[in-house]
Amino acid sequence: ADAPCRAAAGARQAQLTKPAGSLGRLEEIAIFMAGWQRRARPRVDRGRAVIFAGNHGVTRYGVSAFPPEVTAQMVANFARGGAAINALAGAAGLDLRVVPIALDQPTADFTVEPAMNEAECLIALNIGAEAVEPGLDLLLLGEMGIGNTTAAAALCQRSFGGNATDWVGAGTGVGGHGLEVKREVVELAIACHAHAPATPFETLRRVGGREIVAIAGAMLAARLHHVPVVLDGFICGAALAPLAAAMPSITDHILAGHLSAEAAHGRLLERLCLSPLLDLDMRLGEGSGGAVAAAVIRSALAAHDQMATFVDAGVSAG
Amino acid sequence: ADAPCRAAAGARQAQLTKPAGSLGRLEEIAIFMAGWQRRARPRVDRGRAVIFAGNHGVTRYGVSAFPPEVTAQMVANFARGGAAINALAGAAGLDLRVVPIALDQPTADFTVEPAMNEAECLIALNIGAEAVEPGLDLLLLGEMGIGNTTAAAALCQRSFGGNATDWVGAGTGVGGHGLEVKREVVELAIACHAHAPATPFETLRRVGGREIVAIAGAMLAARLHHVPVVLDGFICGAALAPLAAAMPSITDHILAGHLSAEAAHGRLLERLCLSPLLDLDMRLGEGSGGAVAAAVIRSALAAHDQMATFVDAGVSAG
Repeated sequence: ADAPCRAAAGARQAQLTKPAGSLGRLEEIAIFMAGWQRRARPRVDRGRAVIFAGNHGVTRYGVSAFPPEVTAQMVANFARGGAAINALAGAAGLDLRVVPIALDQPTADFTVEPAMNEAECLIALNIGAEAVEPGLDLLLLGEMGIGNTTAAAALCQRSFGGNATDWVGAGTGVGGHGLEVKREVVELAIACHAHAPATPFETLRRVGGREIVAIAGAMLAARLHHVPVVLDGFICGAALAPLAAAMPSITDHILAGHLSAEAAHGRLLERLCLSPLLDLDMRLGEGSGGAVAAAVIRSALAAHDQMATFVDAGVSAG
Repeated sequence: ADAPCRAAAGARQAQLTKPAGSLGRLEEIAIFMAGWQRRARPRVDRGRAVIFAGNHGVTRYGVSAFPPEVTAQMVANFARGGAAINALAGAAGLDLRVVPIALDQPTADFTVEPAMNEAECLIALNIGAEAVEPGLDLLLLGEMGIGNTTAAAALCQRSFGGNATDWVGAGTGVGGHGLEVKREVVELAIACHAHAPATPFETLRRVGGREIVAIAGAMLAARLHHVPVVLDGFICGAALAPLAAAMPSITDHILAGHLSAEAAHGRLLERLCLSPLLDLDMRLGEGSGGAVAAAVIRSALAAHDQMATFVDAGVSAG
């Protein structure tokens, strides 16, 4: 982030008509956004939500409460404006882009082979990167992909260690035997790829998914273009896990929109050194939690931009 | 709240294109709002923020980091549009009303006598009630009053017991010796009024303040008119404490906007049986935290109103 712009935003916060620090995280958000937008008064005129979608070979094991056809059905629902993210992105003033990636080609079963070959993984990274250009004020990343909390758990375990119990949760609502199967699938995946190189690319390619890889690509492009990012939940965080394990500062341009109800999300955010803005017990994905956070970010910037200073307002400082 | 409208809103949530319960507190908010607005699809077309302001005799003891003149200076700042609440109410689409109450007449020193006589207290209650009319979709209550965290601590202690250490915090930023003085002022107030009747009216009158009593009046009027309320922080919660101690269900039409950084706020919300929507380390008052919460409420209602059902969207239910 740009240090002079951060400093200018911090100096402005100190002069606004309120006790120093009394807007708490709203002040942090304003300073964060100033640094990445490289202006002392950040704005969200051009905010974009991008929802990547992909399908997963491991759905054959029954790891989700929903059938894999729902990925394409929900993409159609996004296109018609009927999903939560349509309403929530609208409420937060974000443009919505939906990017389905080869939905008719689920990833391979990563308990026995890599989810993607190298070309497929590179294509997904590029699709992600192409969703971002310089001049965006805020980028919300979200996803849709039946089965993708299983891939996310495998990414976390391969990146940060632990076992499947640490990383596997209910996702859209699988329980009982389904949850046991999900854990077993993750352990099989970890074992299958145990001797592969522990690079971010290989981890994403082997146990990720197309929409997850695209999120990683978009996040990297956002960094290149100085675009601040707000993340949705567990799967989005897992997309960063292989990169953050290799280079922790890769999350510097990222705000965690919320803590989801998915059990492992808190543990993951700690590993990513991110503190969530919201904790609303949400677990939908598709960018929904991040979109609510974007409304809070907009509030933070409104206060930063519009408030009077002590001198301007003739208010006695404490 | 209206049970059929709550039930209709709950039934609608169950049909929307998402796993059941996956929008977490956004679903609860929609159902809550439906019950109090008495319609299955609640809206915030007429949302109002009301900020009451008053002055406090106990500022003579140095209980605040700011001089008492700041109350009137900040009211002028509100009128000119330069305060945090102007920006945050605007971002949340709320109309803002500022109601200063007899700023040139600070309350009496409640360590030695009641803060208000009966007529003064009734006037403040009525001023609060008059700020609310039927047909409002949402009412945000906030306050401004240098010294009012001291009154708030006394209200909490007189309502819920404990000692001054439990209820006194830094407020706008008092520390060290000032904090000791503040605790002592609260203990003196409790002792002074120990033998007075423990009714809500007497507690509000003796250790409250005009803006605090007005908040209680507005909250009661909102209940009468079925207007859902979102509260700001510690002082607003303290305004309800005497009433909630006498009748816990009085908070049923209230959402706690946020958990503030004021140390005792979490303890107070537990006693009020309210779970805060946000935790952003804010401690400004003037309705600021509640206004950010109002933006979240708006997001919740947008999802509830605009989303397609599984049947409409042709999406397979789980």
